[in-house]
Amino acid sequence: MKRLVAVLFVIMLATPAIGYKPLVKKNAFEMKSYTTVGGKTIKKVRVGWETYGSLNASKDNVILICHYFTGNSHAAGKYSFREKNVGYWDSIIGSGKPIDTDKFHIISVDSLVNLSTGNPNVITTGPASINPDSGKPYGMTFPIVTIRDFVNVQKALLDSLGVKKLHAVIGPSMGSLQAYEWASAYPEMVSRLIPVIGAGYTNGNLIAWLNIWASPIMLDKNWRGGDYYNGQPPLRGLTEALKIVTLHSQSWEWSNGVFGRTWANKNKNPLASFSNQYKIEAVLNNVGKARAKSSDANHFLYLVKANQLFLTGHGKSLIEGLHRINSPTLIIHTDEDLIFFPEEVRETAVLISSDSTPVKIVELQGARGHLDGVLSIKQAGAKIKEFLEK
Amino acid sequence: MKRLVAVLFVIMLATPAIGYKPLVKKNAFEMKSYTTVGGKTIKKVRVGWETYGSLNASKDNVILICHYFTGNSHAAGKYSFREKNVGYWDSIIGSGKPIDTDKFHIISVDSLVNLSTGNPNVITTGPASINPDSGKPYGMTFPIVTIRDFVNVQKALLDSLGVKKLHAVIGPSMGSLQAYEWASAYPEMVSRLIPVIGAGYTNGNLIAWLNIWASPIMLDKNWRGGDYYNGQPPLRGLTEALKIVTLHSQSWEWSNGVFGRTWANKNKNPLASFSNQYKIEAVLNNVGKARAKSSDANHFLYLVKANQLFLTGHGKSLIEGLHRINSPTLIIHTDEDLIFFPEEVRETAVLISSDSTPVKIVELQGARGHLDGVLSIKQAGAKIKEFLEK
Repeated sequence: MKRLVAVLFVIMLATPAIGYKPLVKKNAFEMKSYTTVGGKTIKKVRVGWETYGSLNASKDNVILICHYFTGNSHAAGKYSFREKNVGYWDSIIGSGKPIDTDKFHIISVDSLVNLSTGNPNVITTGPASINPDSGKPYGMTFPIVTIRDFVNVQKALLDSLGVKKLHAVIGPSMGSLQAYEWASAYPEMVSRLIPVIGAGYTNGNLIAWLNIWASPIMLDKNWRGGDYYNGQPPLRGLTEALKIVTLHSQSWEWSNGVFGRTWANKNKNPLASFSNQYKIEAVLNNVGKARAKSSDANHFLYLVKANQLFLTGHGKSLIEGLHRINSPTLIIHTDEDLIFFPEEVRETAVLISSDSTPVKIVELQGARGHLDGVLSIKQAGAKIKEFLEK
Repeated sequence: MKRLVAVLFVIMLATPAIGYKPLVKKNAFEMKSYTTVGGKTIKKVRVGWETYGSLNASKDNVILICHYFTGNSHAAGKYSFREKNVGYWDSIIGSGKPIDTDKFHIISVDSLVNLSTGNPNVITTGPASINPDSGKPYGMTFPIVTIRDFVNVQKALLDSLGVKKLHAVIGPSMGSLQAYEWASAYPEMVSRLIPVIGAGYTNGNLIAWLNIWASPIMLDKNWRGGDYYNGQPPLRGLTEALKIVTLHSQSWEWSNGVFGRTWANKNKNPLASFSNQYKIEAVLNNVGKARAKSSDANHFLYLVKANQLFLTGHGKSLIEGLHRINSPTLIIHTDEDLIFFPEEVRETAVLISSDSTPVKIVELQGARGHLDGVLSIKQAGAKIKEFLEK
């Protein structure tokens, strides 16, 4: 019996079965030097990237996926059969799925200043990287980067692959900002645009909230102006920052619906002591701590800055940036979003379409707020498929 | 000429003119000892209180006003003619106004653990107070208090005045929690209930946000477990905490509508440096700093705890607490509220009315979110007047 199981296991590993998905591999793309929108040069830029599906001979079946603030390029599949988790949008990427790997070659790239420097599958360049000139981590001397810089590095990667046209650019949240920027910066390259849970700019309200997200890091005594790579990292501040992101990305229906007023420990009444918490507090603390372990605090600050600076086109006005977009656009969002409010998403749609660029809006339903753009994306699967195949 | 002006000025000071409002005086109420809901005894509890209008002979024309989280008992009028500002609800309290001082005797009381210990017009007892047993500030050894404790101290004040029945209890935000609690704890005393921008309980989502509000204080190295009264107070942490409260209390239409993406300094592009900010960031920093100066960090933490613990009736269930309310109820709220979401406010209304207690809801319109319960209360003036006079 043991032997039979072993044989079956070997066959399973060796033979593509029905629904078989090839394992995902992380690649590294390197640029000897890159000059930012702000005019600073970074030597030796490296970012990770992965692909799903195959590039066709004419290299015109590429769909680019851009990731969210706390995410990375792992959008679909697994790195090994043993892994439990799949990429964040696996529900819509794969053989026969809306973003069909039988037809398309999907490319997903780690952003500059990616948060998850402690994740062995993330390759990025940012303040935690070694500055080749000094042999030490950049810290806060790393140049400020923008969403356009993320896009320009992706563009350099595509150039190196000989890809001249994108069938579509798609991404959730910060990924949608990169998608808007792509279609505005390189309109001739982008055939279709699918921004998910994001607007064409970061408005005053989100600029303020991003400031709130970042503040606990700078309050942490271990942050020391970003110069902590030889000592203790500011884990408490980073934990608090990630708690805010986690809560802000959800709907109140989640935090109240799942946890309500339940105590963290049924024998420890929150009335009795400041250390007795409610369950939602303990859950947020644990999530924040776990996420902080694989994240870098300075990278968080640089991501905040990049997001605050975002205005499609990075020019003088929103309308100017959005009018440069000529790609048919499918905007996916949710009315429960507390990060990009539905009114701004609709404003973005109106502005893009005001010079006759076709724009459609799909609304997600759910109780997870902003996060439904990741968790409930399958709802929009049929619309995405239809849009990609037109 | 100078003399004429001087004479006119003396006449103005001495003679009640049309629309004359008497100056407001702060009183102190003291209890030798008070035992909290949690069973702890506090010696020598003092709270401030003020009144508008006159108590009638039968002492049955009293309207009690309870204040919000960062507020105090100064709900109407001025302490001196020279003052520019009036109390926070002055638009609806006064001679001929919806809460009419010609008819009613309005009493407003500083809460326990009131935030504004540095405001000379606030009298409160909390962690910054001297513990008579040790001769030193309590710090975090002060007993945890609840919204019911705020109510019980107000009740003791009314008892001392011989007031046996309240014409109405009204308050915004944390004031509305006290109002719900009053009507549930002492149903025979409360003839009318007017909760403004608040629900019958603090739900899981708000419990989590209150945790986020409090966190920066405990991150500040000057906090030292609350034992900072001999050293530097944790002003940076308190500033960050007050920034969150300020932003969370507003609608995105305010932060974006008023400030948008304007730079704090038109010569300092936020792209160029981390110290170059957007205007909304600078405004929040300044507001936070200014509010922190007159506030106490430990009092903030105790207020957070009191609010997290809030469930009308402080019993086993929300329905049990709300069913004890028999007072006709007028709930005032706004659909733009991000602290008490409209769905919970409506849930509260449904539960109170489910045993036939009459409940009406008035919706405020505005672009200030939660804060419209303070800034735009005049919109509900006619409804409040009608409700009070029935």
